[in-house]
Amino acid sequence: MGRGMNRVITIVIAEAALEMVPKELLSHPSVTRAAERKGKKPEDTLLDISYHYAAMKDLEDWDRRGRPDIVYLTLLNLLERPLNKEKQLTVYVHTIGNYIIEIDAEINLPRNYARFQGLIEQLFELGKVPPNGKPLMILKRGTLGDIIKNVSHSSAVFLTEKGKAVKGADYFNELVKKGSPLFVIGGFQRGDFSRQNLKLADEKISLYKDSLDAWVVASMASHELERALGII
Amino acid sequence: MGRGMNRVITIVIAEAALEMVPKELLSHPSVTRAAERKGKKPEDTLLDISYHYAAMKDLEDWDRRGRPDIVYLTLLNLLERPLNKEKQLTVYVHTIGNYIIEIDAEINLPRNYARFQGLIEQLFELGKVPPNGKPLMILKRGTLGDIIKNVSHSSAVFLTEKGKAVKGADYFNELVKKGSPLFVIGGFQRGDFSRQNLKLADEKISLYKDSLDAWVVASMASHELERALGII
Repeated sequence: MGRGMNRVITIVIAEAALEMVPKELLSHPSVTRAAERKGKKPEDTLLDISYHYAAMKDLEDWDRRGRPDIVYLTLLNLLERPLNKEKQLTVYVHTIGNYIIEIDAEINLPRNYARFQGLIEQLFELGKVPPNGKPLMILKRGTLGDIIKNVSHSSAVFLTEKGKAVKGADYFNELVKKGSPLFVIGGFQRGDFSRQNLKLADEKISLYKDSLDAWVVASMASHELERALGII
Repeated sequence: MGRGMNRVITIVIAEAALEMVPKELLSHPSVTRAAERKGKKPEDTLLDISYHYAAMKDLEDWDRRGRPDIVYLTLLNLLERPLNKEKQLTVYVHTIGNYIIEIDAEINLPRNYARFQGLIEQLFELGKVPPNGKPLMILKRGTLGDIIKNVSHSSAVFLTEKGKAVKGADYFNELVKKGSPLFVIGGFQRGDFSRQNLKLADEKISLYKDSLDAWVVASMASHELERALGII
């Protein structure tokens, strides 16, 4: 994982609700119908609660799965920000099924959600996209712990509603002074990180008193970091 | 336009690349095909460059049209932020074809882009959504000038790459002290506001040296305003 060389900030979208349709749902009518509309086999499609709700109701942890839009919106917010344009950011996605997606910071994400879905489906099929040339996304097996272990960082900071309330610029200024922080943002719609993953945190912070969508948290943390680094 | 009562900040997404498929493209194969896939008549569908590129190439100003995703992403960023959760924000959309969309701050936007498209198509058909009960979006004819004239504000601030560079907190602190600023963010993919609309600006500012996507600009301005208002 040498992607973040010379980049100060790492942000991990963790336990992301992003996975292919699991085996036990492959023959469910809502899954076969949605796949047919796309001209794909059900096993080649992403789980998506807006199409597969009927199939997902009995799935374990169904309310933390099948939301690839969360990753999409969060990436669109992170990768197009000054922090990334100034080459200070590395982004990883860790999925609920323990895959890791390494993302080239110069990727130009499709502006159309259906195209993004297609790209991720191709990624799960081939292990990288595009199939030829320099890969812009690479898929590997791995846990959140593997990322934290392998990416050099000064502090692993989890953003969670239950963390210490952080207000104003001081916290981020101090953090940046101390080195290269790694941030973990939940890529799921509800609840908190797993207990096991929370143990990996050096610090837990909260940017607002209520729960916020992942892309809003990502924007807020990036903004504070851009300020602390003097980019904006 | 009494929606913003007691709310301090107004943000207008202006000249937004959001419109129904124009008459001259209704019979183009890329338009009829995309409409058929949705089970709709071509005249009941939104112009979208990711589906209608082949049809749009000869359209006037084609590179500033057919990007409803920009409005979608910007609204998802604005409406889910602390600024709106604290009831300090009113959002309007002004479209390139001179429609105004009034948005109820409590709207729960669909998390699926196709559903958002459906909602906007219904809005252009019926003039409001949902069809019954309290409307969450209302469509009217009107210019950007109409919004600026009718919404009480202390200063109309346009966010544009060519504006005065603003760095740090001072500018927003001062602005908020002086009253209720109204911000105008471009809802298009390329270029600047029309010359006519730029004349409506009291101030023109830039938050970063390069061009940024509308949703990033919206996030950055909101963050500064949340800071200035003591929300975060």
